[in-house]
Amino acid sequence: MFNKNSDKNSSERRVGLLIQYDGTNYSGWQKQKNKIRTIQETIENEIKKLDNNANINLVGAGRTDAGVHASGQVAHFDCSGFLPDGKWAPALNGRLPNSIRILESVSRPSSWHACYSAILRRYRYTIYNGIKPNIFLDPWVWHKYKCRLNEKIIKSAIQDLRGFHDFAAFCKAGSKRKHTWTTIHDIQIERKGDLLFFEIQASGFIYGMVRLLVGQLVLVGEEKLSPEKFRERWVNKLRDDIKESAPANGLCLIRIGYIEPVFSIIQDTFPKYILNFKNS
Amino acid sequence: MFNKNSDKNSSERRVGLLIQYDGTNYSGWQKQKNKIRTIQETIENEIKKLDNNANINLVGAGRTDAGVHASGQVAHFDCSGFLPDGKWAPALNGRLPNSIRILESVSRPSSWHACYSAILRRYRYTIYNGIKPNIFLDPWVWHKYKCRLNEKIIKSAIQDLRGFHDFAAFCKAGSKRKHTWTTIHDIQIERKGDLLFFEIQASGFIYGMVRLLVGQLVLVGEEKLSPEKFRERWVNKLRDDIKESAPANGLCLIRIGYIEPVFSIIQDTFPKYILNFKNS
Repeated sequence: MFNKNSDKNSSERRVGLLIQYDGTNYSGWQKQKNKIRTIQETIENEIKKLDNNANINLVGAGRTDAGVHASGQVAHFDCSGFLPDGKWAPALNGRLPNSIRILESVSRPSSWHACYSAILRRYRYTIYNGIKPNIFLDPWVWHKYKCRLNEKIIKSAIQDLRGFHDFAAFCKAGSKRKHTWTTIHDIQIERKGDLLFFEIQASGFIYGMVRLLVGQLVLVGEEKLSPEKFRERWVNKLRDDIKESAPANGLCLIRIGYIEPVFSIIQDTFPKYILNFKNS
Repeated sequence: MFNKNSDKNSSERRVGLLIQYDGTNYSGWQKQKNKIRTIQETIENEIKKLDNNANINLVGAGRTDAGVHASGQVAHFDCSGFLPDGKWAPALNGRLPNSIRILESVSRPSSWHACYSAILRRYRYTIYNGIKPNIFLDPWVWHKYKCRLNEKIIKSAIQDLRGFHDFAAFCKAGSKRKHTWTTIHDIQIERKGDLLFFEIQASGFIYGMVRLLVGQLVLVGEEKLSPEKFRERWVNKLRDDIKESAPANGLCLIRIGYIEPVFSIIQDTFPKYILNFKNS
């Protein structure tokens, strides 16, 4: 039912890709008319050359914004050339810039769709809550220090978010989605020294949701916004009260999940950073 | 006795800097005639502009090679302008590229010398021993996978290196050092999943020593070189048998130590990367 290409050439095969990218210098995943450099287009262009087919369409599981990273993006395309499905990963890696790597390429049935077959998406947002600059963290974290964030208060504020709710409060302007309901399966925050790791898994995400949510949770952690006020804002969809969007570079799409196992790598490949090991 | 500037203008003050840099796009620390971009020159040029003094000389504690990183490099210079010593860090950070950050600037007596007063240097070498590529680790680690490295054998091979020895076996051609003796205070290797962290602390290092040593230890971990053969090579200074130098990007200078505390940051600011956290 999700296969849009049911009338396609019978010699076509569907290939699924597991993708890592450093989003720093890209205008996001999605192809755009006026933006010169997107992840989707960069990969698609190399697939077209290898398959000698100008009609290749690479379908991603999730649209990441400009500057957002991914360690576990998934996409599919249909091809008709002679390259074996498993060879697409090394062949593309030989052509792609260092900022994009295909971790695995696998054969998929034509009924499988990278986006519509996905049952879960998981993001991690990393905050560096230390005073001093740190260039080794800069590309991947939000350096946010006005005070030490109180992660215990944040933890108490996020409990009610689990479950099926209307998250219109966290919907960035410009969304084409018809409704703003989704199911949050899991949400957690963990502190390791000066680093805070915020993870959220849902059936799907509203446009801009994670960054607006993190923006609010930082206010909660700074004790500028009470957990009660935070709850009031999202339960009552007070979209106009929610102004702060956390920067793109702290966000990483770490996993897309399907009912059946699709790739051999099922673990998170985005590193957690550990600081302040004492020297002996 | 180490002060080369005893005849300097009495209005001059000595400033010590604690420095982080991403060495990727630099030809190392040391100013060179024909190389266009070095860390030393990049910082020195900005100091000259702020002090309005063309004679500023920035003296580093250790010379890192092209592509090597530092999270705790130390340097000093003498200035005569009106900028308070503690303000050099933010003033320079406002002018330096993102790949260099001054973590702290402090006042030092003229008898203190960044290089000659140092009593210890500590380096970390990070190896990513996983099969799949990982762009989030690429800039900071050596991706080395022919087999799973046996860190227990490496651990046994490094024990004898502690102490005062002649390390001529690990001296890269081109060294201007008069002798090749040094004292290794501490040496260790730790595995966390697919990552290996190799740390070595010494009173000083021979030119190219850490990378040649890591090159040998990887052979030991691959079980291509026995710990006995490895020992024979360095004890007998078989320099010609030691060919493999580990790549620069896996190496980071993490600490320079002095008898007295010089900076408020004494901990390691180079992150350890942790992979393969299981998702819930």
